[in-house]
Amino acid sequence: MKGQKRIRDYGITIGKMMPGKKNAITDVYGVKVGHCTIKDGGIQTGVTAVLPHGGNLFEQKVMAAVYVINGFGKSIGTVQIEELGTMETPIILTNTLSVGTAGDALVEYMLQHNGDIGITTGTVNPVVCECNDGYLNDIRGRHVKKEHVFQAIQGAQQDFEEGGVGAGTGMSCYGLKGGIGTASRMIPLGEKEYTLGALVLSNFGRMEDLIVDGVKAGSIIVDVEKERETEKGSIIMVVATDIPLSERQLKRTLKRTTVALSRTGSYIGNGSGDIAIGFTTGNVVQHYEKEPIVTIGMLSEDKIDGVFRAVVEATEEAILNSMVCAEPTTGRAGHTRACLKEYMDEIMKVKAQM
Amino acid sequence: MKGQKRIRDYGITIGKMMPGKKNAITDVYGVKVGHCTIKDGGIQTGVTAVLPHGGNLFEQKVMAAVYVINGFGKSIGTVQIEELGTMETPIILTNTLSVGTAGDALVEYMLQHNGDIGITTGTVNPVVCECNDGYLNDIRGRHVKKEHVFQAIQGAQQDFEEGGVGAGTGMSCYGLKGGIGTASRMIPLGEKEYTLGALVLSNFGRMEDLIVDGVKAGSIIVDVEKERETEKGSIIMVVATDIPLSERQLKRTLKRTTVALSRTGSYIGNGSGDIAIGFTTGNVVQHYEKEPIVTIGMLSEDKIDGVFRAVVEATEEAILNSMVCAEPTTGRAGHTRACLKEYMDEIMKVKAQM
Amino acid sequence: MKGQKRIRDYGITIGKMMPGKKNAITDVYGVKVGHCTIKDGGIQTGVTAVLPHGGNLFEQKVMAAVYVINGFGKSIGTVQIEELGTMETPIILTNTLSVGTAGDALVEYMLQHNGDIGITTGTVNPVVCECNDGYLNDIRGRHVKKEHVFQAIQGAQQDFEEGGVGAGTGMSCYGLKGGIGTASRMIPLGEKEYTLGALVLSNFGRMEDLIVDGVKAGSIIVDVEKERETEKGSIIMVVATDIPLSERQLKRTLKRTTVALSRTGSYIGNGSGDIAIGFTTGNVVQHYEKEPIVTIGMLSEDKIDGVFRAVVEATEEAILNSMVCAEPTTGRAGHTRACLKEYMDEIMKVKAQM
Amino acid sequence: MKGQKRIRDYGITIGKMMPGKKNAITDVYGVKVGHCTIKDGGIQTGVTAVLPHGGNLFEQKVMAAVYVINGFGKSIGTVQIEELGTMETPIILTNTLSVGTAGDALVEYMLQHNGDIGITTGTVNPVVCECNDGYLNDIRGRHVKKEHVFQAIQGAQQDFEEGGVGAGTGMSCYGLKGGIGTASRMIPLGEKEYTLGALVLSNFGRMEDLIVDGVKAGSIIVDVEKERETEKGSIIMVVATDIPLSERQLKRTLKRTTVALSRTGSYIGNGSGDIAIGFTTGNVVQHYEKEPIVTIGMLSEDKIDGVFRAVVEATEEAILNSMVCAEPTTGRAGHTRACLKEYMDEIMKVKAQM
Repeated sequence: MKGQKRIRDYGITIGKMMPGKKNAITDVYGVKVGHCTIKDGGIQTGVTAVLPHGGNLFEQKVMAAVYVINGFGKSIGTVQIEELGTMETPIILTNTLSVGTAGDALVEYMLQHNGDIGITTGTVNPVVCECNDGYLNDIRGRHVKKEHVFQAIQGAQQDFEEGGVGAGTGMSCYGLKGGIGTASRMIPLGEKEYTLGALVLSNFGRMEDLIVDGVKAGSIIVDVEKERETEKGSIIMVVATDIPLSERQLKRTLKRTTVALSRTGSYIGNGSGDIAIGFTTGNVVQHYEKEPIVTIGMLSEDKIDGVFRAVVEATEEAILNSMVCAEPTTGRAGHTRACLKEYMDEIMKVKAQM
Repeated sequence: MKGQKRIRDYGITIGKMMPGKKNAITDVYGVKVGHCTIKDGGIQTGVTAVLPHGGNLFEQKVMAAVYVINGFGKSIGTVQIEELGTMETPIILTNTLSVGTAGDALVEYMLQHNGDIGITTGTVNPVVCECNDGYLNDIRGRHVKKEHVFQAIQGAQQDFEEGGVGAGTGMSCYGLKGGIGTASRMIPLGEKEYTLGALVLSNFGRMEDLIVDGVKAGSIIVDVEKERETEKGSIIMVVATDIPLSERQLKRTLKRTTVALSRTGSYIGNGSGDIAIGFTTGNVVQHYEKEPIVTIGMLSEDKIDGVFRAVVEATEEAILNSMVCAEPTTGRAGHTRACLKEYMDEIMKVKAQM
Repeated sequence: MKGQKRIRDYGITIGKMMPGKKNAITDVYGVKVGHCTIKDGGIQTGVTAVLPHGGNLFEQKVMAAVYVINGFGKSIGTVQIEELGTMETPIILTNTLSVGTAGDALVEYMLQHNGDIGITTGTVNPVVCECNDGYLNDIRGRHVKKEHVFQAIQGAQQDFEEGGVGAGTGMSCYGLKGGIGTASRMIPLGEKEYTLGALVLSNFGRMEDLIVDGVKAGSIIVDVEKERETEKGSIIMVVATDIPLSERQLKRTLKRTTVALSRTGSYIGNGSGDIAIGFTTGNVVQHYEKEPIVTIGMLSEDKIDGVFRAVVEATEEAILNSMVCAEPTTGRAGHTRACLKEYMDEIMKVKAQM
Repeated sequence: MKGQKRIRDYGITIGKMMPGKKNAITDVYGVKVGHCTIKDGGIQTGVTAVLPHGGNLFEQKVMAAVYVINGFGKSIGTVQIEELGTMETPIILTNTLSVGTAGDALVEYMLQHNGDIGITTGTVNPVVCECNDGYLNDIRGRHVKKEHVFQAIQGAQQDFEEGGVGAGTGMSCYGLKGGIGTASRMIPLGEKEYTLGALVLSNFGRMEDLIVDGVKAGSIIVDVEKERETEKGSIIMVVATDIPLSERQLKRTLKRTTVALSRTGSYIGNGSGDIAIGFTTGNVVQHYEKEPIVTIGMLSEDKIDGVFRAVVEATEEAILNSMVCAEPTTGRAGHTRACLKEYMDEIMKVKAQM
């Protein structure tokens, strides 16, 4: 989107399913994404907001689930999603040490829009996920302020940039520049067609491990670049769909993001906080529900393999997009990251022979 | 039921909610319970079967959940219930070392009734739960045979005995005779009235810890009887309801059985395999579903506290029923268990003064 | 401590094990607790800090575990504790909507004391737990500032107040004033004596459900006071010990806090975020470990029942202390909470007859 | 082993770490594997036993963990491993509908060797894992008898066959013949060298998805063979090591088997019961422990990435060995499975160009 050259534009097609119109998480009707990028020399960080729908999320919660692939991470809001199976705020992505500020900002945003919270009804569960951008960014400076969170939320739209923008500004992936990436897949079920989209904040992996659609790209690149540090990263994978899945089915779906991660070369390193968080706009739970019994949609379980394939394909492609859309970046202490697009010619040469 | 004197007949009322007509798990429409009792000197064991409904369970699965309070146990079938949220066989209760035989018998029963299993469709997930009745029973002899399992299933009905019958034959609870107990509660939701029932196989606890509706009964009894061994037991708590709960809600409900256990005096000992397993007849999942998307019922979450209270009350009462309906029993190696009803007069005297 | 009249001073003894010298979590060697109380009319809130030991926690992490009894809560830091089995910061307790600020303050505190974080090593996992004090406190105002967190940490000592202080300032429990409470138990193992302590932030329960050591106190009190709202609360239970437990054993121990909760009358309501968090000073994990293989202590599993009893007794007593040490409080919108000590005479009269 | 041509003999090297001497799970000192193969026309099934060490397993339990990747499965014994972190019997692998019989046989075997079980001590937790071999085998006939289990245990040794033997006799993998496969890796830690081995029972995947070390082999094969049914399978992955890992670390290690699965082409299908079970001989827990506190070894967490890589490499290679060592098989109803080795030439041609 936004005119960036994406992995598919280089001739790489992940899997066999059809992508949505934008090949983005925003192909799921109602979903919007906003960035706030903070770039200034050694400051390379930011905020990305994912809005599940355009209405009042606190009043109309989306059914949701979380799956922790590797819990070396500081994301917040997961405990309540696990218990109640719903999400009631936008998802905010940012750097690890700014989670507190972002959480506070998200609470403030929710209070502004919901006068009942903390007065006539309970509190609110802010969802903030994070990766450590400390290689390129002065993370100790905690440069994310409340205003940046508000800007990311308010600027959310259907078209958005990928690569080193928003929360992705300072992130690294497989020793190259990482950040924000997205993709989507269409899933025909009966006579209707549904959509599943993924958005990742990529910040994990060792260069030599990188695989691009079967090509061991890492071993090509590592001869040129020299890996600068051991694996210490994270990835946040946000999955959205309009298929009416139950919380249990959503969680099963999220678990399959591990397959996508593995296909790009990850071994799910110890130091990587790998978290998948997902929601469906196909099941909305009212905060002020009048009926004691409500009905929700559930996918017939023997149709779920299509959803599993969709989430694997979309997430793998989103990871590659997060890398290939990024520009080379220099940040804190003169640290630099090269980017994947510089190596795509060589990768495609190998690919052609397979 | 069956003319036995139950805890309520002694004047003990657990909680404030109304029980169902029989005050039994079979108050939930369709649920049936059958026993096969094996008693012969040092052989004191048996089988109890709980049937969620009278139809073909493999074709019409009930929504289900499991909650492991303490996993020092050998029950089978829990992994698939956790993953798929459904149960497709009756629940069989028996002694620990007969789980293999009971599982094999349950598979045979299911194959007899479903010619498609293993040929044109997948396999079947037998659910067998257990407690260790080795104090009174020659458990090493594994005296449960396939026929006993078939008898328990085939003899299932709405009225059934409590105490030392079926799987409860050789069980001990708080150093006294334990076994099978049941109770139920009615839950009004909107204009309808729903039912939740509990059935326990009790085999846990140290005598001195026993609490009967607030009365520290254990310290009364322990002066007379002398406790014979340290805590090493288990309890299986089966919960049935007709409220349309999601798998997640069922699991939350099962978790509250811990409260009932605690109220009767348990500390959830290390050696006690405490497992709750539950299902709702309010959500049925077809094995051969034609529609890709189905609808299921879900309770509005802010109404769930009534269900939580119901499960706590019914389970606590079921535990007391399992004890108070039991007769004194002598089994293996001359081991004997006295029973709670011998002490009810004394307990009620204390109760009267509270 | 601090001269307050505690539940034991009224003649109530929970269980049979011996408490430590102070009957407080700080009986575990090295543990300190600090409060910062914020009280001004409609502002009734604060911060409590629990420090596992007096050294550098980031460099010498304590082995730790978390158990979520009911996840309707917004505590942070649990994901990483679950994955890595260690805790590397003090535990901060505060109100629900101040978690972001408190998390940010805790990060700042850790950065001040550890120049390596985010530069030569990874980031840090702040642990902040919360309850909703919105009945008495203007929780929307988010009156907790960074300085309050620093004060709570810096003021930590072995002797500390209970009741409506620190994070407990605005909390309610069983319709009365709740807050901070603590207790401890001694556990002889072999020739050594170990200690286990509990500290609770109590904010849960409906008045009519309250049980004080078997006495149905709620039904006594509810005749006088009139319950003002439905159950909507939470409890945080912090457990400390010096017994070398593995993470798995710590988690098993934490799970038994449910028994304590149940004994005081809770049904683990839907709206109550009930979370137990625990650590042992008996197993310390070095951030900069040189050896590839280290040895840790583990309790022989068949000795763990003593630990289970200790945690149940200490937590139940801590809950009662949190209530009985509290003073009547008036806060936001003129809301008031009476306190348990006003009813202790009547409760003890019933108790005497049992 | 046993003179079979393995994947490495074709020139495929998975990963970069060194395999052990036999490149088998039995490279872990003490581990033995035994098969009992049952083959007779439409009967194509069997039993495989993995023995963690040669001593009395009930008295000297190995530290253990389980990770359920996808719980559409009927394996037994997982609940107690999860709770206690130990394993006290051999692991038996067999077909899905024979789990009951195998469990009963394993109990019998344990009783024969331990006169105390069920008399002076508690019961025993049999571990039986399974896959559905119903495509090639008359699984409804339940042809596995107790004697077959005893034979598998008694015949266990360091050298053993791979492919369609033992429990693997009737299994299918990626639409070809699957079964038993194994591999190992050496892991230097400090001055010592440790071993990690994997053994799989493979029975999952759709032909077109198969990837052999980056080569999309499935699309090559599917042109010749025609896939005969949709994905409905399972894989059991047994991991053994002599590194002193804690239960938590073992579980983290097992979770990484998902990466191996993904690299061979799996999407972790709905119908596939994918379970990893692991143990370390480096931490032994005595059934009759005299000391209240014991010490166990634990890997320094920042060294664990080497273990993660080892388990991924060994498991991926074990899966490929399970396929490439298998012979074409005809079974029930004339169903046949071709085998991978028929396609290795073509696969290696593609491989050469990459």
